[in-house]
Amino acid sequence: MKKTDYRVERDSIGVKDIPEDVYYGVQSLRAAENFHITGLNMHPEIINSLAYIKKAAAITNCEVGLLEKKKAQAIVQACDEIVSGKFHNEFIVDPVQGGAGTSLNMNANEVIANRAIEILGGKKGDYTIINPNDDVNCGQSTNDVIPTAGKMTSLRLLQNLKKQLLRLYDALNEKATEFDHIIKMGRTQMQDAVPIRLGQEFKAYSVAIMRDIHRMDKAMDEMRTLNMGGTAIGTGINADEGYLRRIVPNLTEISGMDFIQAFDLIDSTQNLDPFVAVSGAVKACAVTLSKMSNDLRLMSSGPRTGFGEINLPAKQNGSSIMPGKVNPVIPEVVNQVAFNIIGNDVTITMAAEAGQLELNAFEPIIFYCMFQSIDTLGYAVQTLVDNCIVGITANEERCRYLVENSVGIITAISPHLGYQKAADIAKKAIKTGESVRSLILKEKLMDEDELNRILDPIHMTEPGISGKDYLIKK
Amino acid sequence: MKKTDYRVERDSIGVKDIPEDVYYGVQSLRAAENFHITGLNMHPEIINSLAYIKKAAAITNCEVGLLEKKKAQAIVQACDEIVSGKFHNEFIVDPVQGGAGTSLNMNANEVIANRAIEILGGKKGDYTIINPNDDVNCGQSTNDVIPTAGKMTSLRLLQNLKKQLLRLYDALNEKATEFDHIIKMGRTQMQDAVPIRLGQEFKAYSVAIMRDIHRMDKAMDEMRTLNMGGTAIGTGINADEGYLRRIVPNLTEISGMDFIQAFDLIDSTQNLDPFVAVSGAVKACAVTLSKMSNDLRLMSSGPRTGFGEINLPAKQNGSSIMPGKVNPVIPEVVNQVAFNIIGNDVTITMAAEAGQLELNAFEPIIFYCMFQSIDTLGYAVQTLVDNCIVGITANEERCRYLVENSVGIITAISPHLGYQKAADIAKKAIKTGESVRSLILKEKLMDEDELNRILDPIHMTEPGISGKDYLIKK
Amino acid sequence: MKKTDYRVERDSIGVKDIPEDVYYGVQSLRAAENFHITGLNMHPEIINSLAYIKKAAAITNCEVGLLEKKKAQAIVQACDEIVSGKFHNEFIVDPVQGGAGTSLNMNANEVIANRAIEILGGKKGDYTIINPNDDVNCGQSTNDVIPTAGKMTSLRLLQNLKKQLLRLYDALNEKATEFDHIIKMGRTQMQDAVPIRLGQEFKAYSVAIMRDIHRMDKAMDEMRTLNMGGTAIGTGINADEGYLRRIVPNLTEISGMDFIQAFDLIDSTQNLDPFVAVSGAVKACAVTLSKMSNDLRLMSSGPRTGFGEINLPAKQNGSSIMPGKVNPVIPEVVNQVAFNIIGNDVTITMAAEAGQLELNAFEPIIFYCMFQSIDTLGYAVQTLVDNCIVGITANEERCRYLVENSVGIITAISPHLGYQKAADIAKKAIKTGESVRSLILKEKLMDEDELNRILDPIHMTEPGISGKDYLIKK
Amino acid sequence: MKKTDYRVERDSIGVKDIPEDVYYGVQSLRAAENFHITGLNMHPEIINSLAYIKKAAAITNCEVGLLEKKKAQAIVQACDEIVSGKFHNEFIVDPVQGGAGTSLNMNANEVIANRAIEILGGKKGDYTIINPNDDVNCGQSTNDVIPTAGKMTSLRLLQNLKKQLLRLYDALNEKATEFDHIIKMGRTQMQDAVPIRLGQEFKAYSVAIMRDIHRMDKAMDEMRTLNMGGTAIGTGINADEGYLRRIVPNLTEISGMDFIQAFDLIDSTQNLDPFVAVSGAVKACAVTLSKMSNDLRLMSSGPRTGFGEINLPAKQNGSSIMPGKVNPVIPEVVNQVAFNIIGNDVTITMAAEAGQLELNAFEPIIFYCMFQSIDTLGYAVQTLVDNCIVGITANEERCRYLVENSVGIITAISPHLGYQKAADIAKKAIKTGESVRSLILKEKLMDEDELNRILDPIHMTEPGISGKDYLIKK
Repeated sequence: MKKTDYRVERDSIGVKDIPEDVYYGVQSLRAAENFHITGLNMHPEIINSLAYIKKAAAITNCEVGLLEKKKAQAIVQACDEIVSGKFHNEFIVDPVQGGAGTSLNMNANEVIANRAIEILGGKKGDYTIINPNDDVNCGQSTNDVIPTAGKMTSLRLLQNLKKQLLRLYDALNEKATEFDHIIKMGRTQMQDAVPIRLGQEFKAYSVAIMRDIHRMDKAMDEMRTLNMGGTAIGTGINADEGYLRRIVPNLTEISGMDFIQAFDLIDSTQNLDPFVAVSGAVKACAVTLSKMSNDLRLMSSGPRTGFGEINLPAKQNGSSIMPGKVNPVIPEVVNQVAFNIIGNDVTITMAAEAGQLELNAFEPIIFYCMFQSIDTLGYAVQTLVDNCIVGITANEERCRYLVENSVGIITAISPHLGYQKAADIAKKAIKTGESVRSLILKEKLMDEDELNRILDPIHMTEPGISGKDYLIKK
Repeated sequence: MKKTDYRVERDSIGVKDIPEDVYYGVQSLRAAENFHITGLNMHPEIINSLAYIKKAAAITNCEVGLLEKKKAQAIVQACDEIVSGKFHNEFIVDPVQGGAGTSLNMNANEVIANRAIEILGGKKGDYTIINPNDDVNCGQSTNDVIPTAGKMTSLRLLQNLKKQLLRLYDALNEKATEFDHIIKMGRTQMQDAVPIRLGQEFKAYSVAIMRDIHRMDKAMDEMRTLNMGGTAIGTGINADEGYLRRIVPNLTEISGMDFIQAFDLIDSTQNLDPFVAVSGAVKACAVTLSKMSNDLRLMSSGPRTGFGEINLPAKQNGSSIMPGKVNPVIPEVVNQVAFNIIGNDVTITMAAEAGQLELNAFEPIIFYCMFQSIDTLGYAVQTLVDNCIVGITANEERCRYLVENSVGIITAISPHLGYQKAADIAKKAIKTGESVRSLILKEKLMDEDELNRILDPIHMTEPGISGKDYLIKK
Repeated sequence: MKKTDYRVERDSIGVKDIPEDVYYGVQSLRAAENFHITGLNMHPEIINSLAYIKKAAAITNCEVGLLEKKKAQAIVQACDEIVSGKFHNEFIVDPVQGGAGTSLNMNANEVIANRAIEILGGKKGDYTIINPNDDVNCGQSTNDVIPTAGKMTSLRLLQNLKKQLLRLYDALNEKATEFDHIIKMGRTQMQDAVPIRLGQEFKAYSVAIMRDIHRMDKAMDEMRTLNMGGTAIGTGINADEGYLRRIVPNLTEISGMDFIQAFDLIDSTQNLDPFVAVSGAVKACAVTLSKMSNDLRLMSSGPRTGFGEINLPAKQNGSSIMPGKVNPVIPEVVNQVAFNIIGNDVTITMAAEAGQLELNAFEPIIFYCMFQSIDTLGYAVQTLVDNCIVGITANEERCRYLVENSVGIITAISPHLGYQKAADIAKKAIKTGESVRSLILKEKLMDEDELNRILDPIHMTEPGISGKDYLIKK
Repeated sequence: MKKTDYRVERDSIGVKDIPEDVYYGVQSLRAAENFHITGLNMHPEIINSLAYIKKAAAITNCEVGLLEKKKAQAIVQACDEIVSGKFHNEFIVDPVQGGAGTSLNMNANEVIANRAIEILGGKKGDYTIINPNDDVNCGQSTNDVIPTAGKMTSLRLLQNLKKQLLRLYDALNEKATEFDHIIKMGRTQMQDAVPIRLGQEFKAYSVAIMRDIHRMDKAMDEMRTLNMGGTAIGTGINADEGYLRRIVPNLTEISGMDFIQAFDLIDSTQNLDPFVAVSGAVKACAVTLSKMSNDLRLMSSGPRTGFGEINLPAKQNGSSIMPGKVNPVIPEVVNQVAFNIIGNDVTITMAAEAGQLELNAFEPIIFYCMFQSIDTLGYAVQTLVDNCIVGITANEERCRYLVENSVGIITAISPHLGYQKAADIAKKAIKTGESVRSLILKEKLMDEDELNRILDPIHMTEPGISGKDYLIKK
């Protein structure tokens, strides 16, 4: 390669050759060299978020007279191009980086500056035309830009997660209706309890998911409060007062998302507890989903030697050695994503706790884990809906058979005979293999009509004491 | 000891000698023998919660004709006595127990039954008078009683925590006012940044605490939805319809706390995600407090070789070997409580995830960790307020000295000279030890009046660009 | 109470009334007032450990001429009395305390000093006779005493845990023998796989436990390296060179435990990673136990609608509402203890990470969690052995029935027919309900003799290809 | 695209079009469609590990007559090509997948089969020539192949981590020597303690790292025990006895790594506690590194308003708004990697705990987190050495100044004056600002010669009591 393929850039550390045709600059390159940690790229949505922020800042700085219109227009155009998907490969810094995101912020500043310089007819690297710090970063600091970008990104990803949860809610509800007539045995602590309807179980899952959806809404609210304008430490040094007033409304308008400016910018710059709260909500959702997935795996266990109450759709061969085996692979991936989210929550918590004084330098790992948690949960829910829930079928006869042979129905009889007598019958039934019904009739503890009424299966799945009139005490 | 000192009780496992004078019965004793895990007692508040629930159930069962008035009255009196502090030592089961809390529920049923039997003139153990299962537990199951007791208890403990947080908020605000005039150096990433006022820092802490207080309110709402009436698996088997309608309003009235009945009792019986959500909120609060405690330890580091900006009150000798040493022991205990809460959150999450089908059997460990988290955080905040925050003093001169000798003030000059030029001056200042001010004057980059205006310390701690009129661009 | 009931003590903070008859002093009392966090007592074993340490120090200081023989003898006697169980209630400081354990160390110093003063005929509080700092703490610092006490205690508790694990190993092995002939279905991913013998399963559990026992041995080795002699920060300031050489051998002799002195006392004073490593080993053990407990709960699920392969002994009534229900309460408590240990591991990790410079101030929470983890795991294993494993029985017929009706045996046929053909048969068997055996015979894919040999159940549970001679390829 | 661009493949689910030129097959494609979770590729090392395993299996199967030599040679060649870096892009399944790794195993089987078919002159997809299941997977199951591949990969990555840790050990040792003469103040709990030498601090860091290196060795041993030959559930069904005996020695020879076959293959197939143990060791190392990084950030805090004892090399601009600011970005990235590892440890633990009966289906997430933990820690250590440790410089004068002005040196005087008197002097010194030395002389508590000897700075950093001869008691 010829020497002319490089331009020379300078920063406080010294000078450095930069490939002539790239849009990033010296600071991005140093950071890329310092941090080879995950080897991954920045999340595309945070690149977009940065473009929105830089655009809003350019417009606002122009409005208050701190940035010439021509420069502002070029910056705005560069930002629009990024949002349209261009230049994403110019973001070369590792998502896990030291320095509170300064490397990422400067990567954005440099790419935007160089593209804007080009738009204005200049040559990349000629920062007298547009300066990454003085112009693109005008009125800003990493310390307000990066938390803002993290919140914008989280918010957008949460919206997708919520969309997938709503699809899951609908799919579960449809199954609840489809399975509403199927009587099956309820189990507590893996032991036969009392009858329930399969539809009731799916209904309960859907209600739990709706509660998680509500938590997502609250979590999104935690992400709406921005510290833009706080600059270096939240005191707003070097932020023009007009800019300070306009930046968040302008960002709201440009991004189409609802934001408010933090009441106390100092607090909002140094404390990352909102990310802990959001991660906590995502984690609670993961817990619900993992528990439900465990249930699906239990209920579909078999085909011959398990519970065998439902069938999950076969989506791929289950084994390389065992022919014909089909495994609950979709719930299994949901479990794994949930475990990962629970681990990420610990990471996010530790990183948030480790903030010191006016800043938390550990935003990069928080964002990395947060975006992964939200994204992978969204994808997991998507495959859960499409490749599992909608295709679940029930083994109605097997379900009914298990109820009819269970001992757990003794519970419905307990109010009539008393707990201890009922327990004795249950014990005898388990020991002898005889049915509860026949034991009661044999011992003449109840007449057959009453017993039939009490043991009506549908009735047992709804509130109320069968044959309460027999029981009323004064 | 004579044989007459024991009564004989029987359950499904067999018979067992029970000390004649105790109120617990055979099921409590078996559980105590099976589970010697922590060796600790049940939390007094969950004992009280159980008493409220059993009282509400007795009243409701009486209203709907399922419990004779005489029995109900005796049960109510027994419950009232427990709430007044009696019989707590009769709760002998370990807080960490298998069986979803059946042992605790039966411990309550047995103690209440035996006390009610006494009240009715009977002899302890004569369950024909009042039966622990058929009467005290009438219309109930461990599976609605225990989650309800856990929520009631959490709610009450959260109220105390909130009270302590409000005290902390006030104490921080007072310090914010007291220290509002003290200029000090702000630091990001442990490096000198730009000036801030000590009062602003304490104000920011208080704002963060207020956010946590709001989260506590939301967390408390998660605890208000009860599954009472759902009985064994949420279907409400053996729960009279009138009882089902009345039990939560009655419990609300009796306890003086706001509760609502779950919309879907099946979901509410098997899913413990609300506890995950509450633990997440408590954890977010712990993160805020731990970060603040870290700051207090940093700012008070010294007395001679650290930051030395503030002094924490000396509450005890700091060392057994180093005379005169005073340590930040109060913030240190806050840190430790926070670490414990973060660990407890993992435990609570795992236990919630491990629920299966119609029930989560792992409530005992969830409650144990949850109560510990809330309680210890409350106590930690209490000592933080009383033994630390209110007694903090500032080293005003030291704070000012550090600002005046810092290089960080270059940031205020950057908009006037451009980032790169400013960086060069900063670098030279650090290298030579000369002040930024004198370097700028020496190099004739600004006149002294302008420089004074820009470097006005108070001004630097508020939003705005010093000397903006010089800067306006078209 | 009369004024004469108090003595006055003085420390650097000021003076304070101390109840006349107590052995603790002013520093203990201040700490007890500053830290009301858990409300619990110190673990008795750490009190004993401190007594051993103080005794060894007194003897060593006497040997090198820094402590008069008379004083030393009195201190030794006081320590011996503590080890014998006396004065434990004089340890009044909360286990969760700020200050790196200074409060606990001073509590020991004060109790021992006052008891030694008494022995020498003095009056409690007359520290001219024996001084808590200058005499009892001579040559020591909290910063070597407390980590040492934590390691001694962990070691002793680990020995008990190991003992319980060995009992579990034996119990599992006995079951492995007892159940060796019982053919049952193996399951992977909750789906029918291939046959296994119940005894093989229990054998595998025992082997896993033995691996944990080996890890316990390695964990104990992590606890044997002490920083005694390092004093304040590991440099050994104020530790006489003779003392430095003799203190660890003397402690080894007195305690009867194997200890070595750290090669680098500075490292050993500030780094608590050995506790992280030990907690990690305990956690790995908890994982093994929790997985095994999950299996026991799965295999005993039923009695009628679950797997029903084994029966856990009934140890208590399973339900307050469902008569005759028996739950797997013992494995459930093991699960919960495991969850708690996993959470404690996070706490211990965070606390170890938070050390700063020459000391980690967060030992108290590490010890609190560590002791709890080890103790509760030991108790959980104990009840698992005594109340569960030894009483497990197998449902041999049910196990055989499930194997005979399963489709999974197709795997043994796969080498003969090829995976794809075998998969087609398996699919047809599941769909039609017909047995694999009859389908193969019907389709004349194998003759009956060969098929019988291949499907010999015991053979299928051992390595090897049935009828390999048919298969050999050139 | 024309129809001829696809070939049709069939599995138990049905038929599917596969792009004609790809080496993966129908099962890989289904898995890729079912699991779009992380969007990332498999780790290249696990692809290599699979190639080694498949090669060893082909050779072994050929040795025992179960695979024709021609087929075996083609498979071996295909595997060698993969190890040389080819076909990695044919591994299309997501690292986070349901199904215990069956998708990954089949992806390997299909790629190898199709490449071997090509080598033998056939057309991709013509599995009559080489069958992915019957030939490439002969004698194997996902359930022994995948855990084995995970262990091989972990082992290789751990070797790299160890290499980096050894480099760090050396770098720290060099600094220990370089800084051995620099007296500085030791601090405990962020408060001035007693003097130490900067070299001693770096030496202590190196000793801690060496302990971690030893733990890495033990961790690697946990990864050497393989369950190859256990096939589906560890019973060895369909594994020829000769194959069973030869497969691990052959794999050892081919890979050049030390492996042993598990004593109990059933245990080794279902229990993943070795990964928990390894993750625990990696985590302990992360804790050591994070603590050290925290110290580096503390000691380099400044440049003007912090501790200012050392300087970390400036590797990039520290701020987008604050000119000249240099931040400790390298230690900060180490902290973040450590937080991530601690979170991953929770994920790994949960996944290991969730295994059921004969298999743990959650290996994919364990491997994903494990590889990430080991890799990122290695990279973090690498940048820590190269971009931080080797370039650290000390501010010797500042260090000495802080010692000389500190009060902590009173500790050396304490054995001579007694703790209480020494404490009084310390308190007065802090209050008045006067030096300890002048106060002692002024109060004529010691003569100047003795004082000089006691306060000799180097002496204070080594064991021993200054002027012990004054102190000896009888």
